[in-house]
Amino acid sequence: MPETVLYVCTTCRAAEDPPDAPRAGARLLDALRAEIAGRPETDPAAALRVEGVECLSVCKRPCTVAVASPDRWTYVYGDLDPASSARTILDGLGRYAATPDGLVPWRERPEAFRKGVVARIPPFPASSAG
Amino acid sequence: MPETVLYVCTTCRAAEDPPDAPRAGARLLDALRAEIAGRPETDPAAALRVEGVECLSVCKRPCTVAVASPDRWTYVYGDLDPASSARTILDGLGRYAATPDGLVPWRERPEAFRKGVVARIPPFPASSAG
Repeated sequence: MPETVLYVCTTCRAAEDPPDAPRAGARLLDALRAEIAGRPETDPAAALRVEGVECLSVCKRPCTVAVASPDRWTYVYGDLDPASSARTILDGLGRYAATPDGLVPWRERPEAFRKGVVARIPPFPASSAG
Repeated sequence: MPETVLYVCTTCRAAEDPPDAPRAGARLLDALRAEIAGRPETDPAAALRVEGVECLSVCKRPCTVAVASPDRWTYVYGDLDPASSARTILDGLGRYAATPDGLVPWRERPEAFRKGVVARIPPFPASSAG
């Protein structure tokens, strides 16, 4: 199965974040890593590669993540709650990773993904230049 | 130089579009193709691959485009005017294509890109799985 990468914006700040506390995005990254570590190896989300990124340029809709994988559509999601959404995100990405093209049927997408979608980008095409 | 692909959402509809007229996104695609055809082969934008896409899921900010290239950041831009922005987009993408990583210095970005950025996604990492 091709590798799937989850990018988590660590710069995202929630409105209620104190200036010197860890940012919401960094807390979401920690929550996602903890959630993955607690899953069995057979869970599709257990094979995810998770990377913290400084700014995905979706600053008005924290928290923000992006998911990418060769031959699949890339998706960007915002408005994610750092405290409660880790499990939902990983369940949704498990469905994503199980598709050949990244297109999960609408009904099977978590509500947080339906409402929070920021953008999607097609799979990078095979080069015509050879 | 690695191939650069410009995706243009052809589903984007401007508020003033009559229901049965070509959509703003389709008009932007036509304008971009015409602008590229008029440029000399030495222009960095002349080597762009332009693809129409049905929906980039940025429906609240028409018109929308995305640019992607191996080893470079992917960018998504919205709020683009179908009638007047083709030249600006191609000039901006010429700068993008001239960078190794897709990161154009802020000052050199067209204002339409600074204000219209919807999201950016890191270059897909080299696989750690070998």
